[in-house]
Amino acid sequence: MASELKRLAVLGSTGSIGRQTLEVVRALPGRFRVVGLAAGSNLDLLAQQVDEFRPRFASYAAPGKAPSGCELITLEEMASHPDADLVVIATPGTVSLGAIMAAAAAGKTIALANKESLVAAGGLITAAVKKGGARILPVDSEHSAVFQCLLGEKQPPRRIILTASGGPFRGFPLERLASVTVAQALDHPSWRMGKKVTIDSATLMNKGLEVIEAHWLFNVSIDEVSVLVHPQSIVHSMVEFADGSVKAQLGFPDMRLPIQFALTFPDRPRNASLPRLDWADVKELAFEPPDMDNFPCLSLAIYAGRVGGTIPAVLCAADEVAVELFLAGRIGFMDIPRLVERTMEKHSPGSDPSLDDVLAAGDWARQAALEMAGGGAK
Amino acid sequence: MASELKRLAVLGSTGSIGRQTLEVVRALPGRFRVVGLAAGSNLDLLAQQVDEFRPRFASYAAPGKAPSGCELITLEEMASHPDADLVVIATPGTVSLGAIMAAAAAGKTIALANKESLVAAGGLITAAVKKGGARILPVDSEHSAVFQCLLGEKQPPRRIILTASGGPFRGFPLERLASVTVAQALDHPSWRMGKKVTIDSATLMNKGLEVIEAHWLFNVSIDEVSVLVHPQSIVHSMVEFADGSVKAQLGFPDMRLPIQFALTFPDRPRNASLPRLDWADVKELAFEPPDMDNFPCLSLAIYAGRVGGTIPAVLCAADEVAVELFLAGRIGFMDIPRLVERTMEKHSPGSDPSLDDVLAAGDWARQAALEMAGGGAK
Repeated sequence: MASELKRLAVLGSTGSIGRQTLEVVRALPGRFRVVGLAAGSNLDLLAQQVDEFRPRFASYAAPGKAPSGCELITLEEMASHPDADLVVIATPGTVSLGAIMAAAAAGKTIALANKESLVAAGGLITAAVKKGGARILPVDSEHSAVFQCLLGEKQPPRRIILTASGGPFRGFPLERLASVTVAQALDHPSWRMGKKVTIDSATLMNKGLEVIEAHWLFNVSIDEVSVLVHPQSIVHSMVEFADGSVKAQLGFPDMRLPIQFALTFPDRPRNASLPRLDWADVKELAFEPPDMDNFPCLSLAIYAGRVGGTIPAVLCAADEVAVELFLAGRIGFMDIPRLVERTMEKHSPGSDPSLDDVLAAGDWARQAALEMAGGGAK
Repeated sequence: MASELKRLAVLGSTGSIGRQTLEVVRALPGRFRVVGLAAGSNLDLLAQQVDEFRPRFASYAAPGKAPSGCELITLEEMASHPDADLVVIATPGTVSLGAIMAAAAAGKTIALANKESLVAAGGLITAAVKKGGARILPVDSEHSAVFQCLLGEKQPPRRIILTASGGPFRGFPLERLASVTVAQALDHPSWRMGKKVTIDSATLMNKGLEVIEAHWLFNVSIDEVSVLVHPQSIVHSMVEFADGSVKAQLGFPDMRLPIQFALTFPDRPRNASLPRLDWADVKELAFEPPDMDNFPCLSLAIYAGRVGGTIPAVLCAADEVAVELFLAGRIGFMDIPRLVERTMEKHSPGSDPSLDDVLAAGDWARQAALEMAGGGAK
């Protein structure tokens, strides 16, 4: 029995996706053994998780007391350790970029919930995955949907259609957008997620990052990825094939579904704690094109994806700063795209970047965005 | 090059599906060679098709002049001939039951557009397919959708959700249904099909037959197949898995799409003559439960599927007669389910039937239905 357990390392175990990952582990007893847990600064929750799951390894970023009974190792060590079969990457930003590269080199199966790493360094990651014989299983609901639609298909997709809820401000005119509050932006209509991704959903930056992510995950050009607003968040994404046939994956909007799919693939075990789609409630699925004018983050990301090089890393880092400043009440909602765009304009993009180039571009962008925000982005 | 051509035998080449099959062949030059064409009574069209496609074999049911330059053979011989790689079954009723059994025994790939054979003799056909190492590729848009959604999945579906347009009389009250005309019933809102299947769509008998067909094709129980009305006919059907994930196949409602899929599987070649789904036009997909009260044919078919034995053959044959009588203006629209139900009630169902038992039950039912219609079904 013990030999059949899938051994998990969960990087970012105290965040929204990390906690939901452990909910899935709890709901499917006898399937998994948690061998490593890594947190940022929420050491109280990490200690509780260690008490419950008894991992051999732990890792954390903030200063504080180590959870008892664990060996402390780095993210890179945890992600590439021989004891881990599947590495869940649920950390924010590019914190785990090195760990992803290590997992790729070690040939791990990587359940990837972090999109910024792939956006900033997709070329490097996909090359490392290929070289190391690793595999990425997407955890984002959209990319999980695309992955599921591509199962068993022999030909590449003609087009990937990422659906977007449109966020809480769909249909808002510009003047209303300028004055929306943090609380309004955090009130996502359909998904329970962390703060950063919830704000990114409200600006549509999240969808833009997902376009770049899809480009790397499924080996399609940026222009073969479309975005379609679908407010009910039931259709999680679609794939169109050369013959005109379209496949879609649908489900109740609950992140535990794509998380479980990545953890249990190729199995699809029943999990009584997960909600199911009830067609008596669904009635109607609506679709509309995204509003590129009022939500310029989407165009900025598509532009960055087309240009490539270090520009996507700059987009990510500038957005990280802009969202932090918005959450802190220091800039307005429409300053987010403005600050990202100005940072991108100031950047001299390098092509074919190394990992250091990508990280340096991100550091530069964070600094530049902060300075600009201090000096008049507001 | 010649050795790469897929060699087709098309049984029912002059009907709606047969003609559309040849449209696909025409649109994809260099992929197929038509080795056999079989028609019912439309010998003029058969002669034209023979002129164009120059098959080695022909077959026809009506008395008349043979098309020149072909060997005349039986349906069974054509369906099992070593020269045929793929046998398209697009004949009406149970005309090709023997040919399907012959193709199954010969290990052919069978593109099955005829649902009545599978409804009447699903157990016999699936056993013969298994024994002969044959394969059925469904051509019905719904079953093609399910087949596409199951590609690459390792576990059986938890539930199959067949979508139904609801036909031209969706939402009609009983009193209006009683007086609908043949012309109204033939005016299907989304699909271009033959007369029999168009009337069956209007009564929902077609969807009931498809429930039984899905049960045999995908090895699920009748109660694991649900029906969901979806008036736009864009979502062609769905599959729900044990983990709650749902996959759907979508497309413009055009029979050439599922026909091409069956002909070219596992390829999905581009065909410029086929319409594509344009999301700017789609906007909304609606879903509602079927009206089992006003469309009793659906319940009759589900009941027949559950009971099994010879009852599904009786359902099919009685429906064939009832639809013919309706098309001839001899009975009303609501007499169709009434006549089918009364015929089923009079039948003493046999279990575990042989092919002869199934054919005899069908013959009995046709006779019984005709007699009842003459004697007061109106």
